[in-house]
Amino acid sequence: MIIIMEQNATTEQVQHVMERLLEHDFDVHRSTGASQLVLGVVGDTQSVDPRDYELLEGVHEVIRISEPYKLASRTFKPQDTIVKVGDATFGGKKVGMIAGPCSIESREQIRKIAKFVKASGTKVLRGGAYKPRSSPYSFQGMGEEGLKYLREAGDENGLAVVSEVMDRVDIIPALKYVDLIQVGARNMQNFALLKELGKVDKPILLKRGMSVTLKELLMAAEYIMAGGNHNVILCERGIRTFENYTRNTLDISAIPVLHKLTHLPVVSDPSHGIGIRDKVAPMARASVAAGADGLIIEIHYDPDNALSDGAQTLFFEQYEQLVKEISMIAKAVGRTV
Amino acid sequence: MIIIMEQNATTEQVQHVMERLLEHDFDVHRSTGASQLVLGVVGDTQSVDPRDYELLEGVHEVIRISEPYKLASRTFKPQDTIVKVGDATFGGKKVGMIAGPCSIESREQIRKIAKFVKASGTKVLRGGAYKPRSSPYSFQGMGEEGLKYLREAGDENGLAVVSEVMDRVDIIPALKYVDLIQVGARNMQNFALLKELGKVDKPILLKRGMSVTLKELLMAAEYIMAGGNHNVILCERGIRTFENYTRNTLDISAIPVLHKLTHLPVVSDPSHGIGIRDKVAPMARASVAAGADGLIIEIHYDPDNALSDGAQTLFFEQYEQLVKEISMIAKAVGRTV
Amino acid sequence: MIIIMEQNATTEQVQHVMERLLEHDFDVHRSTGASQLVLGVVGDTQSVDPRDYELLEGVHEVIRISEPYKLASRTFKPQDTIVKVGDATFGGKKVGMIAGPCSIESREQIRKIAKFVKASGTKVLRGGAYKPRSSPYSFQGMGEEGLKYLREAGDENGLAVVSEVMDRVDIIPALKYVDLIQVGARNMQNFALLKELGKVDKPILLKRGMSVTLKELLMAAEYIMAGGNHNVILCERGIRTFENYTRNTLDISAIPVLHKLTHLPVVSDPSHGIGIRDKVAPMARASVAAGADGLIIEIHYDPDNALSDGAQTLFFEQYEQLVKEISMIAKAVGRTV
Amino acid sequence: MIIIMEQNATTEQVQHVMERLLEHDFDVHRSTGASQLVLGVVGDTQSVDPRDYELLEGVHEVIRISEPYKLASRTFKPQDTIVKVGDATFGGKKVGMIAGPCSIESREQIRKIAKFVKASGTKVLRGGAYKPRSSPYSFQGMGEEGLKYLREAGDENGLAVVSEVMDRVDIIPALKYVDLIQVGARNMQNFALLKELGKVDKPILLKRGMSVTLKELLMAAEYIMAGGNHNVILCERGIRTFENYTRNTLDISAIPVLHKLTHLPVVSDPSHGIGIRDKVAPMARASVAAGADGLIIEIHYDPDNALSDGAQTLFFEQYEQLVKEISMIAKAVGRTV
Repeated sequence: MIIIMEQNATTEQVQHVMERLLEHDFDVHRSTGASQLVLGVVGDTQSVDPRDYELLEGVHEVIRISEPYKLASRTFKPQDTIVKVGDATFGGKKVGMIAGPCSIESREQIRKIAKFVKASGTKVLRGGAYKPRSSPYSFQGMGEEGLKYLREAGDENGLAVVSEVMDRVDIIPALKYVDLIQVGARNMQNFALLKELGKVDKPILLKRGMSVTLKELLMAAEYIMAGGNHNVILCERGIRTFENYTRNTLDISAIPVLHKLTHLPVVSDPSHGIGIRDKVAPMARASVAAGADGLIIEIHYDPDNALSDGAQTLFFEQYEQLVKEISMIAKAVGRTV
Repeated sequence: MIIIMEQNATTEQVQHVMERLLEHDFDVHRSTGASQLVLGVVGDTQSVDPRDYELLEGVHEVIRISEPYKLASRTFKPQDTIVKVGDATFGGKKVGMIAGPCSIESREQIRKIAKFVKASGTKVLRGGAYKPRSSPYSFQGMGEEGLKYLREAGDENGLAVVSEVMDRVDIIPALKYVDLIQVGARNMQNFALLKELGKVDKPILLKRGMSVTLKELLMAAEYIMAGGNHNVILCERGIRTFENYTRNTLDISAIPVLHKLTHLPVVSDPSHGIGIRDKVAPMARASVAAGADGLIIEIHYDPDNALSDGAQTLFFEQYEQLVKEISMIAKAVGRTV
Repeated sequence: MIIIMEQNATTEQVQHVMERLLEHDFDVHRSTGASQLVLGVVGDTQSVDPRDYELLEGVHEVIRISEPYKLASRTFKPQDTIVKVGDATFGGKKVGMIAGPCSIESREQIRKIAKFVKASGTKVLRGGAYKPRSSPYSFQGMGEEGLKYLREAGDENGLAVVSEVMDRVDIIPALKYVDLIQVGARNMQNFALLKELGKVDKPILLKRGMSVTLKELLMAAEYIMAGGNHNVILCERGIRTFENYTRNTLDISAIPVLHKLTHLPVVSDPSHGIGIRDKVAPMARASVAAGADGLIIEIHYDPDNALSDGAQTLFFEQYEQLVKEISMIAKAVGRTV
Repeated sequence: MIIIMEQNATTEQVQHVMERLLEHDFDVHRSTGASQLVLGVVGDTQSVDPRDYELLEGVHEVIRISEPYKLASRTFKPQDTIVKVGDATFGGKKVGMIAGPCSIESREQIRKIAKFVKASGTKVLRGGAYKPRSSPYSFQGMGEEGLKYLREAGDENGLAVVSEVMDRVDIIPALKYVDLIQVGARNMQNFALLKELGKVDKPILLKRGMSVTLKELLMAAEYIMAGGNHNVILCERGIRTFENYTRNTLDISAIPVLHKLTHLPVVSDPSHGIGIRDKVAPMARASVAAGADGLIIEIHYDPDNALSDGAQTLFFEQYEQLVKEISMIAKAVGRTV
């Protein structure tokens, strides 16, 4: 931690700040710049709230220098983490694909879609059972029954399955049925949930919150990893911006930036990220061109009658076409699908 | 719902849109404007995803006209709702005050603060037992033990008490100990939690999420109200903006705007809203000048050694001074403290 | 400037960074923290782009410690600057008031409004002659003819006048007619214009851009002051946020924060800041409660037929009522109107 | 325009709104929905401020249905516009490339870079002569002298040249020396400048403002086109978001969305969009994968000693490598470089 004093700070003010630091068992290095005195603070500054020092008289600014996340940091672990989910891997040379409907709507629906997913060469099936809908009057998902159908459809086709949990109460059924547990954007800072998932023996797909920084995303991953679960896949799914033509703005730059900051794999969700069917393919291509380790795509045999998010859901033929395009782009950046 | 067709939409395209609407049992009114055809759609459009129609060929834009919230709307209930919490009221002529520490740190701490709160004339005591901290390595709160001390301190001084729950699992202990249940900003769209709180027989203090619109805040209130609990107090606590000198930007304009849109009371939390001790008082004054129905203020006898958020916490003397200033402002806008 | 090295930076990497600093004539202080090496850089770092060092191998982060603005900083000049405009002052004990129509529409219109402004006790008359409209098909203002009418109306009533310039070309006529030159929000980073206004012998009313930080606003003021013109009044007029019920979100917290960072006076423009007539008064009251040094309010005898921004313009009676309310609030914070 | 009345609007309120519409020569269609009365307004509503009607008693919301831009709209002109700049085209099957330094620093510098640009196969040379710097103490560009060197370097190598103008005063020299006139992000709403460029006989490269919507970008294009100049190239160059690891967030989704809304070509500026050298290539690849019609890239033989923005500037070898990668991606989406 570094404390920058005001240009006109008095000797007493400097003394007072230093005493307070020493009381808290920190070592202090003084360094006099061209115009300002700078105090270098050495010790475990992780738990300090910088504002506590910013409020002291004569202090201009307080700057933290260690990253608040450790386990998720590339400094801590330079090699890429590869997360295995069934027959798919995320973080290696292959671009991992996940596909399926927004919501599990019936046993038949998910089986039919699973069969197609299998045929397309994709290894992981998605499907929501608990739906976070912004209106209490919208379809809220099939719950545990849906998870059963999802598992069954996966097993019939040799697919791994992923589904979202909404709070700690949902973890028990999820452990029974799914291979990869998803944390949604609205729950990215549900710390009670994250802590609990740290104790779980399944990989976690952690979606970025709609208005959070990448550092906050990595802090959320740190919550899970601090509990012992290091199998975390990060997912960019669109941030809120002033543009309202699209539902969200898929932040493609998050992909190369996260690859620098962390060893965890990064996948992209263009379906939620853009929210309009005919823009999903360009954004999926752009994600892979920017280095995404995987894609998660919403598909349905009849999007027009899907119970949720049909407008951003691809038809089967569109998905087949997309997989072809993605393969070409992947090749151009030295990867395979 | 209104569907605006493209200027060059073909007769077939218009026909196709109309057929789809009729299939879904809507009535349709055609109206030809200067340059565009407009379809007025009558029926229960609440559950329709406008994007489903926006994707159809020839459609320019789809606009929803009913508010998606009903129970929370001023149209539905024109008179102000007054929520009673112990001896305090929120939503009437009096500006309701809530004060206390960010975290409950010990039995002695909360008792000492409660005694001061009582003496200051304030009727509601706050204190956090489950703390949503962005780092897993920070103090996480005392849990249920803290709630016990809070209740005890409240009872000794005849104060009502408020504390935050973080997910459904926390509701049972909260019901035992608190008079007003707080939902934090990060949980404002934790729909599983909101639904459960709709069944509870205690008032709810619902904090606005950091990057949500007022409509989304009202939809969150609707989730609670749809379950039967109409005692909701809304709380503006600062939004995220590009400014990083302050922790958040307290959106004072939310106060008059919410008063127009809803009958629910609106309180302001300048402590979180600005996050710096010496700016809390001006923002508290501004909130009351703009019509806030209440304030929630963090105080401590020793903010410098508080376990969380000390930097935004007032000293006792500062709170006493603030109450005096607030009383003068309240008078200027025809209210009392 | 402070350079924080990666935890695993090699000796060669550190050496390379230090050599580069020495080449550019900086002094360097090394300081070894708990986990990271920190280099304190002393010298004129103002002109350095921190990213140039961030790109070097082994560098974790580069932090600038001097404020990039000097003349505008409270460190540079601790006492409040008081700007005189005709008989009004901004920055002292009095809250300065500015009122008038959005656009000058005709000789009669501005004379009629000026007469009322005079009668209300307000000393500065506003009126736009060059209008920055987002559509090329909207009314674009009367230009220099409008300025003439504004001057005449001001002179008849002993009022100072303020109007906006849109680029360097408009400065010459403005100098002829107005007492206070306004720079609009969309022009806050029109650096060619700011530089030119630094050479002018009239005070400048500088509006905050819609999405800029306070530091950027102060940098814009610095552009003007660096040219020699120190009479700058800052104006908060609403920032863009995700809320779209209001046109902008008036950032009231900017008022106490700017008062800490700078000695320049800060006024508030609730008319543009909220954009809806019936919310102007609460936001004006809140501004004064938070410490604003002045207000700029749009008024018209017939807002419904104003050529621009009628929806945010007060009727005369509303302005008279507002002045009364503001006087009471001002008293509560130790000021007068 | 559509006016939605409150559910409990009285007959008198409806009558009053209708009278006002008729006074202004609009035709009105009444349509009674399930719960609300809707008024369809026919006529030239382009110049109406919707807030004027929203303020009337009993009005719930006012919605505009025509796009405020016409000439820029794909509805108005369905076929892609192809803009020719020297030997390059923007908007056709080829991805147009523009490369060069951030600033023109000397005659030698720009000639050396131009030679390389030519050799790389790129047809358009960029170089800034008037630099919009956020600090008045930074290098401000060579002005007209720089433009001369740029023109000369272009002519020697058979390259077209592009440079930025900062306000109306700069147009005259720009016309003398450049083939494509750039409007910077901070000037996107400098309406006086846009209007003037509408009368000019050279194509315009219009950069998106840092916090504007795509509709606002198209309105800015409309300002130019309304003056008669239809040769406008739109440029996505990064928007401001809460993320501060990168300078800006390049909004790749703007590319497919703009292609739907307008016939104008869309190029991407990943250098400014991401602001960090090693992330420029992934973002350039992503832009082309998403359908960009061109790229504008900052290059220098010695980025470490460039006078501005060196940190985002590519080395010559990096640019050569990028052109190769882009060619492969372009092929995957059916285009060429």
